[in-house]
Amino acid sequence: MRLVQFCHPGAEGGVRVGVEQEYGNGVIDVKEFDPSMPSTMREFLELGEKAMDCAQRALSSGQTTLPYSAVKLLSPVTGPDKVVCVGMNYTDHCLEQNAPIPKEPIIFSKFPSSITGPYDDIALPNESQEVDWEVELAFVIGRKGKHIKEEDALSYVAGFTVANDVSARDWQMRRNGKQWLLGKTFDTFCPLGPALVTTAALTDVHNLGIRCLVNGGVVQDSNTSQLIFKTEKLVAWVSQFVTLHPGDVFLTGTPPGVGVFRKPPVFLERGDVVECQIDEIGTIRNTVV
Amino acid sequence: MRLVQFCHPGAEGGVRVGVEQEYGNGVIDVKEFDPSMPSTMREFLELGEKAMDCAQRALSSGQTTLPYSAVKLLSPVTGPDKVVCVGMNYTDHCLEQNAPIPKEPIIFSKFPSSITGPYDDIALPNESQEVDWEVELAFVIGRKGKHIKEEDALSYVAGFTVANDVSARDWQMRRNGKQWLLGKTFDTFCPLGPALVTTAALTDVHNLGIRCLVNGGVVQDSNTSQLIFKTEKLVAWVSQFVTLHPGDVFLTGTPPGVGVFRKPPVFLERGDVVECQIDEIGTIRNTVV
Repeated sequence: MRLVQFCHPGAEGGVRVGVEQEYGNGVIDVKEFDPSMPSTMREFLELGEKAMDCAQRALSSGQTTLPYSAVKLLSPVTGPDKVVCVGMNYTDHCLEQNAPIPKEPIIFSKFPSSITGPYDDIALPNESQEVDWEVELAFVIGRKGKHIKEEDALSYVAGFTVANDVSARDWQMRRNGKQWLLGKTFDTFCPLGPALVTTAALTDVHNLGIRCLVNGGVVQDSNTSQLIFKTEKLVAWVSQFVTLHPGDVFLTGTPPGVGVFRKPPVFLERGDVVECQIDEIGTIRNTVV
Repeated sequence: MRLVQFCHPGAEGGVRVGVEQEYGNGVIDVKEFDPSMPSTMREFLELGEKAMDCAQRALSSGQTTLPYSAVKLLSPVTGPDKVVCVGMNYTDHCLEQNAPIPKEPIIFSKFPSSITGPYDDIALPNESQEVDWEVELAFVIGRKGKHIKEEDALSYVAGFTVANDVSARDWQMRRNGKQWLLGKTFDTFCPLGPALVTTAALTDVHNLGIRCLVNGGVVQDSNTSQLIFKTEKLVAWVSQFVTLHPGDVFLTGTPPGVGVFRKPPVFLERGDVVECQIDEIGTIRNTVV
């Protein structure tokens, strides 16, 4: 299944969970199908299998499908407890910065307030001159757990989505005592979407083409098979430290081709259009303003 | 005013916002006084002045006061969007580690899942051998803002509370690519409380005695006048990067006397009792288990 969050543009507030009829064929409002269903993805995931079953029934019910022109797609998750990020998780991305291949995952974070929608603008802050792109495979936790074993890990994952781990390199690499947080967490620095694709709907999440295009030109082009630490390992690793909750978002790291390591370096400018895409999951497209 | 979150032990779920009659004299259930009031502090703060006025009326209403024996105090805020932490913000704490006095605040974070109550246990993780204490002045954001000016900053702060920024030094200082997050964010590593004390109820938040006691012995003893970057500066600084939301928690940094810089170093063990106290705000008391 492909789950989304959306709102009706112009309507008051009103976040809704939707399920896509087929990729590109519009959205079914799950709460319209069953008014007992919650409005947000986080609450939806907290309901577990009951909610997933309901979305599945909505899909096969003949329920009215809303065309994309009638909805505004939001990030598939908003307001999670955590946005967990992984640094240097593609071998080639380590090589491009002359960094050793890590023996353990390197974990940092963004604040949930940095999350924005799949087609929303990235606001270039006046405080940075070095804003960069990073396409990433992201996944979302589906049920609560601590000390999760690798062999059980996928059962804690609700599904996968596409992320852009937008990064202000000046703040990440040279300011703030070299703690990465500030450079990673400006408002709008975490575009997510377009849908949360359940694991069962993907052939093999660790063998998908992953690309970033800036103004139509390919700048990153790799495959999720190149991930050093894969989904199962990351769930097991992070759950040693913290209890994972439904809705928690993981960004799994970026492949080579970011702007800061180009010669000369290239950074995002107002008007640039950044597309992040992963095969079978979809494309997010954000304009820098 | 002194605002708290509590639940009735044994009762189902049921978080409530309370207001303390006087320090030590029991708690009034704000929702019992006015059923239209929300149940959680985050929602309460989102209501702004309307909620504060209601709590004030509850206080002077003669409403039944619950004795402390009838309630379990929780962290005054749970589930915020952000827990913003400040590193090296007391001059003497920089000197004890031979670190330069920072020219800008150093910002890192904990996940909200690390928050625990004022009298709850600190769970010593098997994954660390070097768990340390850090008493800190904390404050909580009362209204949404971005690019807040220092001169307006206090009007964005709902009040102050006491924090223990519990820290696994091995993970903070030597693992995880020297990103501090993991060492700071184990479950239960952010005890907060006992109350959210509004700014008006404090004589001068930047001139309060601040102490940490381990098993009754004083290990940290300073004054909030020693803060390098004070509340107004921290609000202005962080709001350059991110939109602040009601309920966001800031931990302002710790004075000297932490365990890791003692000679020889001292770390917490199971059975230890850690008390963090700030004059006029109160004491949190957590047992290491």
